[in-house]
Amino acid sequence: MRIAVLGTGIVGRTLAAALAGRGHDLVVGTRDVDATATRPDVAEWQAAHPGVRLVPLGETAAHGEVVVNATSGEGTVAAVVAAGDVAGKVVADVSNALDFSAGFPPTLSVANTDSIGEQLQRAFPDARVVKTLNTMNASVMADPSLVPGEHHVFVAGDDAEAKAVVTGLLTDLGWPATSVLDLGGIRAARSTEMYLPLWLSLMGVAGSPAFNIRLVRG
Amino acid sequence: MRIAVLGTGIVGRTLAAALAGRGHDLVVGTRDVDATATRPDVAEWQAAHPGVRLVPLGETAAHGEVVVNATSGEGTVAAVVAAGDVAGKVVADVSNALDFSAGFPPTLSVANTDSIGEQLQRAFPDARVVKTLNTMNASVMADPSLVPGEHHVFVAGDDAEAKAVVTGLLTDLGWPATSVLDLGGIRAARSTEMYLPLWLSLMGVAGSPAFNIRLVRG
Repeated sequence: MRIAVLGTGIVGRTLAAALAGRGHDLVVGTRDVDATATRPDVAEWQAAHPGVRLVPLGETAAHGEVVVNATSGEGTVAAVVAAGDVAGKVVADVSNALDFSAGFPPTLSVANTDSIGEQLQRAFPDARVVKTLNTMNASVMADPSLVPGEHHVFVAGDDAEAKAVVTGLLTDLGWPATSVLDLGGIRAARSTEMYLPLWLSLMGVAGSPAFNIRLVRG
Repeated sequence: MRIAVLGTGIVGRTLAAALAGRGHDLVVGTRDVDATATRPDVAEWQAAHPGVRLVPLGETAAHGEVVVNATSGEGTVAAVVAAGDVAGKVVADVSNALDFSAGFPPTLSVANTDSIGEQLQRAFPDARVVKTLNTMNASVMADPSLVPGEHHVFVAGDDAEAKAVVTGLLTDLGWPATSVLDLGGIRAARSTEMYLPLWLSLMGVAGSPAFNIRLVRG
């Protein structure tokens, strides 16, 4: 499948490499390809994954049947605007609206009565937005076997077919289909985005970002 | 131990009954004892648990070595003011700041940059506030065996001794000590209070409020 990832941070790089490793045709979009390519972290990653092409943001939507938003939460809408026409496309939003303006731990720039996922769906009503993967560290997103036994990843969105496409990609990354929990419409992006503070607290308990949560039913 | 529960909703009644069943000396505070006692839900509960005394809110702090806030989140500070002098006391806050003014699902009346737990600690600087149990249904709070296997309950607060007292009470309710995760200071009340929307989404998946989450470490 042709997939475009927006963002060259650790989440974008990790997901793009993992999806390319599963046979998908990947591009990663960035505002300034030349500047990004000279960053040491990006150069090292490009050398390890030569099949993943770094392209200008404006070329991403044309390439991707699926567009993965891995930019920072606050920059999401602007990044998708810059990506081109996403009408009809599956937009998998893995971002969190981290606000570090008051230091660590961060607050959220959007919360409680709205979410980045909902903002994105409102800004692009013809796109099929699916919120997913934003409840864990990048390493666990791309390799759920880092956490033993059953644990869960969430999808939320208004388009059932788009959620099925995203679930297929999650399966490619190693998530068993039974570990993908459908939380309903895009409003549930609020549920997973507001989990961020608890995720930070649990990282303190676990002593490592390599953890996740499991829903345990009574 | 002498324990005062504030609030006669399902959470207050369930916790008071369970703690009394473990041998603790319980009162439950309410604004108007006569009016509350005639409510059918309260009358039935009182008949089943005659050892738990319904008292005016103003008598609760004097009784309780531990004061459990089980009032609605928004009413918390007013309820504790009405309870009397809580200086030096352990105040276990199990509330959530549910705001149903825009219907279901609720939003939170406090979130992101503050929490009910933090408000309470600021309003009563000499009290020893511990946020706990607000991440699950009342039935699971009082009987964790309703959910099979390992799953977790959180404590957050600035006073280590107060957290140990609360952990003791959780153990009395059936929580293994290893299932009690210390999230740190009272700021982490924000983490557990902001989990509410995800809890609601997970209830939709589970099809029942008898569930919980487990931290799974990598």
